[in-house]
Amino acid sequence: MISIAVLGAGRSAGYFIDYTINLCKDRGWRLTIADMQTSHLEKYQADYPSLALMNASLNEQNERLRVIEGADWVVSLLPAFMHVDVAKDCLIKGCNLATASYVSEEMQELGAEAEKKGLIFLNECGLDPGIDHMSAVKIINDLRANGAEIIGYKSYCGGLIAPQFNDNPWKYKFSWNPRNVILAGNGVSTALLDGEIKVIPYHHNFQRPEEILMPDDSAYEAYINRDSLSYQSIYDLEDVKTMVRGTLRYPGYCRAWNILIHLGLTDNSYKYPLSEGMTYKEFLCSFLLGNNHTDISDSIRQTIGMPDYEQDAIDKVLWTGLNSNEIVPTDTQGSPAAILQNLLEKKWLLKEDDHDLVVMQHQVKFTLEGETKMFVSSLHLEGEGRVSTAMSKTVGLPLAIAVKTLIDNPSKKKGIVIPIYKSIYEPVLEELKSFGVEFSEKVISLSEPVTESKPE
Amino acid sequence: MISIAVLGAGRSAGYFIDYTINLCKDRGWRLTIADMQTSHLEKYQADYPSLALMNASLNEQNERLRVIEGADWVVSLLPAFMHVDVAKDCLIKGCNLATASYVSEEMQELGAEAEKKGLIFLNECGLDPGIDHMSAVKIINDLRANGAEIIGYKSYCGGLIAPQFNDNPWKYKFSWNPRNVILAGNGVSTALLDGEIKVIPYHHNFQRPEEILMPDDSAYEAYINRDSLSYQSIYDLEDVKTMVRGTLRYPGYCRAWNILIHLGLTDNSYKYPLSEGMTYKEFLCSFLLGNNHTDISDSIRQTIGMPDYEQDAIDKVLWTGLNSNEIVPTDTQGSPAAILQNLLEKKWLLKEDDHDLVVMQHQVKFTLEGETKMFVSSLHLEGEGRVSTAMSKTVGLPLAIAVKTLIDNPSKKKGIVIPIYKSIYEPVLEELKSFGVEFSEKVISLSEPVTESKPE
Repeated sequence: MISIAVLGAGRSAGYFIDYTINLCKDRGWRLTIADMQTSHLEKYQADYPSLALMNASLNEQNERLRVIEGADWVVSLLPAFMHVDVAKDCLIKGCNLATASYVSEEMQELGAEAEKKGLIFLNECGLDPGIDHMSAVKIINDLRANGAEIIGYKSYCGGLIAPQFNDNPWKYKFSWNPRNVILAGNGVSTALLDGEIKVIPYHHNFQRPEEILMPDDSAYEAYINRDSLSYQSIYDLEDVKTMVRGTLRYPGYCRAWNILIHLGLTDNSYKYPLSEGMTYKEFLCSFLLGNNHTDISDSIRQTIGMPDYEQDAIDKVLWTGLNSNEIVPTDTQGSPAAILQNLLEKKWLLKEDDHDLVVMQHQVKFTLEGETKMFVSSLHLEGEGRVSTAMSKTVGLPLAIAVKTLIDNPSKKKGIVIPIYKSIYEPVLEELKSFGVEFSEKVISLSEPVTESKPE
Repeated sequence: MISIAVLGAGRSAGYFIDYTINLCKDRGWRLTIADMQTSHLEKYQADYPSLALMNASLNEQNERLRVIEGADWVVSLLPAFMHVDVAKDCLIKGCNLATASYVSEEMQELGAEAEKKGLIFLNECGLDPGIDHMSAVKIINDLRANGAEIIGYKSYCGGLIAPQFNDNPWKYKFSWNPRNVILAGNGVSTALLDGEIKVIPYHHNFQRPEEILMPDDSAYEAYINRDSLSYQSIYDLEDVKTMVRGTLRYPGYCRAWNILIHLGLTDNSYKYPLSEGMTYKEFLCSFLLGNNHTDISDSIRQTIGMPDYEQDAIDKVLWTGLNSNEIVPTDTQGSPAAILQNLLEKKWLLKEDDHDLVVMQHQVKFTLEGETKMFVSSLHLEGEGRVSTAMSKTVGLPLAIAVKTLIDNPSKKKGIVIPIYKSIYEPVLEELKSFGVEFSEKVISLSEPVTESKPE
């Protein structure tokens, strides 16, 4: 009998857990769900008495090993940094593994041993990464099957708030892990633009975002998401002239966030020398030039060296409370980024009835029969509340469906797998449609290149 | 019989080695000098036949252990990252250790074991760190002995080129480890300014340097050097209102270097995707916005988001050859910082007859008998050529003299030691004078605070 063990059952796991409980009940599979606290899942045991719930400290290896004992598949919904430990447990116990997170270097290193043991370690199978890979590779393969040559690829994704619930000047609230939002873009990002490699340092990534229009004419802006170049080989796009993966925000967000980056408030590399009773204003001013901060907007402009920076962006920064006389809680001892996260978690809280929004768009430029065209594929999915978020749905369901798919038709590829194989992405994308996760598609004919005027 | 082992005998070790050979010869001490190649030191064996020269691969532990066998003191002139390995060797063989480098966290962790074994691990005993500590603590102690209360401390040091040899627009050449210059200021720097903590992110540190005038009216500019705040406890200056440690450059350097930082060219955190035959111009352009670089200065201004950035600073950047069609050597595979270093090592080469310059200044503000004054102590030392640099002298001699001092009068303090103790700094500073390394001192009376005009 197939047995699945799920590590982590937090609130954002809802869609995954619902789907997987129903699946296992229908198929008569064994299912174990473990977390610090699982009593909220006891209601499912009435219909599915053999559902095993385990209260366990999953940061302890012996507890994890106890949970995954005998499982064919282990799904880690734990914070991303724990996946490698879980992967090691899976090697010990001979379990397949699934996560929605990026393949870390350490995870990659475990791939060979997993392969040797005939195990699948499926990763990057949520929304972004996940649905983005699946839908992109499907477009690329379908276009090529029709004889097209792909010449450019751009893809954008954002976890946002539905417009009617946008009630703060950033037009942003946390619908997923706040830490990822605070540290987004940290390090260097890369892209390929009309044949030129572009290297974008952290403090430039939010400075000049690209403007993006969706099919419904809603406007967004995008910053570059990590190392776009590395996806050329993964997507088999070695010959394209443009390769961009970006993250979407509502217009105005990036220029304001850019200030926080420039001031050093998103730095996570050192412990800030927080003193007892320090206010947020004092914290902010410690990052500003000089000691005279009577005009805080002016001080910010002076410090970042951009005298014409728009007031609108500065106002967003001040709205957070960073200029207030409220005392920084001492339990936020840590990096500037940790202090900022603690503050923003209060300001950017998703309210009970707020609907989040997931937006994704691929723009695939290709030539076919002498014409240059663009395949535009867009996803626009609204959530239903603080628990039933579009984010939790689009992260959880692909993972759950992919595990089912791989149990039904085990992939020949073992070791580290991401969902770029037809045998995975086709059934997953198809089934996602029944949950309302469906792309709209159109093909735009691009105007012929303008003929250069010749010198007379 | 006292025995000293010296690891590393590169060109910059000249002053240290000369001094130490003479010392050991005079005292009848054993001296072993080891490096990949030591034949250039054979000339000393005529006068001092028991001088042991060992050609050894000092990155291999067994070779190092062979060299330090039986030594009372080991002096590491190796690159700073190797000091911790040497320190571990010293723990094995029971040797005292001396280096001119900052105490790293890993070095600090070895302190307890060294202390338990009764060993001294002397660090930070070169120029900066080294002479700066010794001269600062001497001033502080002397002022306090006279009843003064210290209220502010600023200290600046720079390894520069003597003005008459300043023949490039940066007015800079490498007189010491180029890597340290390329990565200077990386991470966060801190200072205390009129009672306010200041946190200076890397990309702001060179943006608005402080102007510094020396007693001879020569002008410099300074960026903040690392974590100034941590020296409050080390110098026993917990109550000062101002605490700044800065690094000096000639005017104009910092604003130009700031461009390189902002573009991301000093980033050492990732391997740049260098392609075969890539030119420096293509390398530079990969960090610039857009694909149209006909006006490269304009592209740079656009990218850093500072439309009024002075042409003079941009010209310095272009002077380096970063805008040339020369091909980036493939042996510089590595980070952007490594590629930049390789380029600048050619451009900023100290010529055979060039004289370097070491400048240091302490500004210690104090109150005494109701008056506020400033003790200004300045060092200005010119080198004598590419080998006999002021830098090599001021790094090597304090280390050599301190080792002699500690052999003659072993400090009661064991474990990690930096030269802030009178028993070390007094004899070292005194003997340095005989080598021309001497501070000029003056006391300036600061004007009384201007009485605030009252509203009428």
